[in-house]
Amino acid sequence: MTQVGIIGLGSMGMGMALCVASKGMRIAGFDLNPAAVAKLVEAGGHAVSSAAKAAQNANILLVVVVNAAQTEAILFGENGAASAMAEGGVIISCATMAPDDARRLAAAAQALGLSYLDAPISGGAAKAAAGQLTVMASGTAAAFEKARPVLNAMATTVYELGSSAGIGASFKMVNQLLAGVHIAAACEAMTFAKKLGLDLPTVFKVITASAGNSWMFENRVPHILDGDYSPQSAVSIFTKDLGIVSDMGRREKFPLQIAATALQMFLMTAASGKEQDDDASVACMIAEMTGLELPSKSRVR
Amino acid sequence: MTQVGIIGLGSMGMGMALCVASKGMRIAGFDLNPAAVAKLVEAGGHAVSSAAKAAQNANILLVVVVNAAQTEAILFGENGAASAMAEGGVIISCATMAPDDARRLAAAAQALGLSYLDAPISGGAAKAAAGQLTVMASGTAAAFEKARPVLNAMATTVYELGSSAGIGASFKMVNQLLAGVHIAAACEAMTFAKKLGLDLPTVFKVITASAGNSWMFENRVPHILDGDYSPQSAVSIFTKDLGIVSDMGRREKFPLQIAATALQMFLMTAASGKEQDDDASVACMIAEMTGLELPSKSRVR
Repeated sequence: MTQVGIIGLGSMGMGMALCVASKGMRIAGFDLNPAAVAKLVEAGGHAVSSAAKAAQNANILLVVVVNAAQTEAILFGENGAASAMAEGGVIISCATMAPDDARRLAAAAQALGLSYLDAPISGGAAKAAAGQLTVMASGTAAAFEKARPVLNAMATTVYELGSSAGIGASFKMVNQLLAGVHIAAACEAMTFAKKLGLDLPTVFKVITASAGNSWMFENRVPHILDGDYSPQSAVSIFTKDLGIVSDMGRREKFPLQIAATALQMFLMTAASGKEQDDDASVACMIAEMTGLELPSKSRVR
Repeated sequence: MTQVGIIGLGSMGMGMALCVASKGMRIAGFDLNPAAVAKLVEAGGHAVSSAAKAAQNANILLVVVVNAAQTEAILFGENGAASAMAEGGVIISCATMAPDDARRLAAAAQALGLSYLDAPISGGAAKAAAGQLTVMASGTAAAFEKARPVLNAMATTVYELGSSAGIGASFKMVNQLLAGVHIAAACEAMTFAKKLGLDLPTVFKVITASAGNSWMFENRVPHILDGDYSPQSAVSIFTKDLGIVSDMGRREKFPLQIAATALQMFLMTAASGKEQDDDASVACMIAEMTGLELPSKSRVR
């Protein structure tokens, strides 16, 4: 029977773990937060006390941590998880990272006789809980074949984008470039609309039906209208992801003007004390700078 | 019977004029291009030899020209059209312009006993021809009431956004800010994807199903994939519209970082000789700068 390990039970990893458990697969999970591990046990999973133990004899190992450095330390650092896996096992690496990092990690896995799927995810916590993530993945056909039951348990859409690591990461970074720019643009446009004296709910209604619409405008502007900046996705995610995009551009000697501007707007927002707030709080940063009053949660509720 | 006049029979104005004529309304049209006027006559319209003659005894006058300066010259310049209109007539002003300009034109109309609808349009030539435009309009209830048969002939969606001129223009400029940024971002993302070695049609498929999508990404990226930059909407439209946005920001002392960056990208594209090409040719400018080869029309056809 397939043994699945998972390292990282945050909001995304937890949803994925519970979906895998609900399909009757054997799963062992590790997280630094004991409450998260307890929740997995309730759902029929197995709790273990280290990353290496989560990987013990695993045929499939999900790594759902923040970035390339964490992924690398967990897999290949001291007491690394990769060497504890079953022979011929597949690592499904979900962190958003630069393509070069994904390629380096895949090479390290291969050196241990393991397969590596470069498999960044998107969709957010609610879709993770429902097993409805989107995976932008690349890796060998054999690795996809072995990983398929787990991928199908956690995602409704699995893009198989190529046979080598780095391609999945590249697609994810192109998506993050656009997503970050669109959030910053939505915040700039809504605060500008406020400055012009427009009724913001009407702006939302008109723009979402017009050529100025974006997935992010539609998703994030309601946070501004509700004055609710509890972090569904924090500013720090985009300082990180647009930071990776910026690094990639410099490495490739490729100018990314509009992504660079959006990164600066997220950095300004983080610098003004909102790093852990929802990413729509770019609008709050602009409103504070310009002396505008946006809807506040207490007033609208 | 209502007499309608129209000044400006470009791709938008022509579609609108033909829709109005097809509803059996009496319409007289003027354009500097005789071929355009002839087409209106074929459809049952009336050809006249000046803007003032198009306005002669008109109850409703559509002005569908490029900008505020043209609109002002036509309406209130030497031999201006406004003073030829029927008593109590309504001007429907469709050019994209700054709110201050719309307010100034409305005041001039009012001084002549006329009403003014600040009524920028969107949707493009195809929707204009089908009578399916979107109008972002403001003006008095009485003006809307008189103009409604004409508005209904040309548009499927008429937003009534407020009782005074300037509000319609403000909504349109917020939409143009977002639209311009999203085109520039789409071009930056697609060329970056090419630099990363990704398959561009697959990028289009994945992004349009992901959080990085925008209306403009979905609409303009096919031009890049087809290598077809025949102008459905030219670069010059966005140097103009983001120029207006930029002027508005300076007047309001309101920073517009991401719109400013997008404007620079359209200016770079215009400066490199593509001002009259499709606005997706921002991607060509980036590709030329960075030595990338995008799909070309001859190769893909």
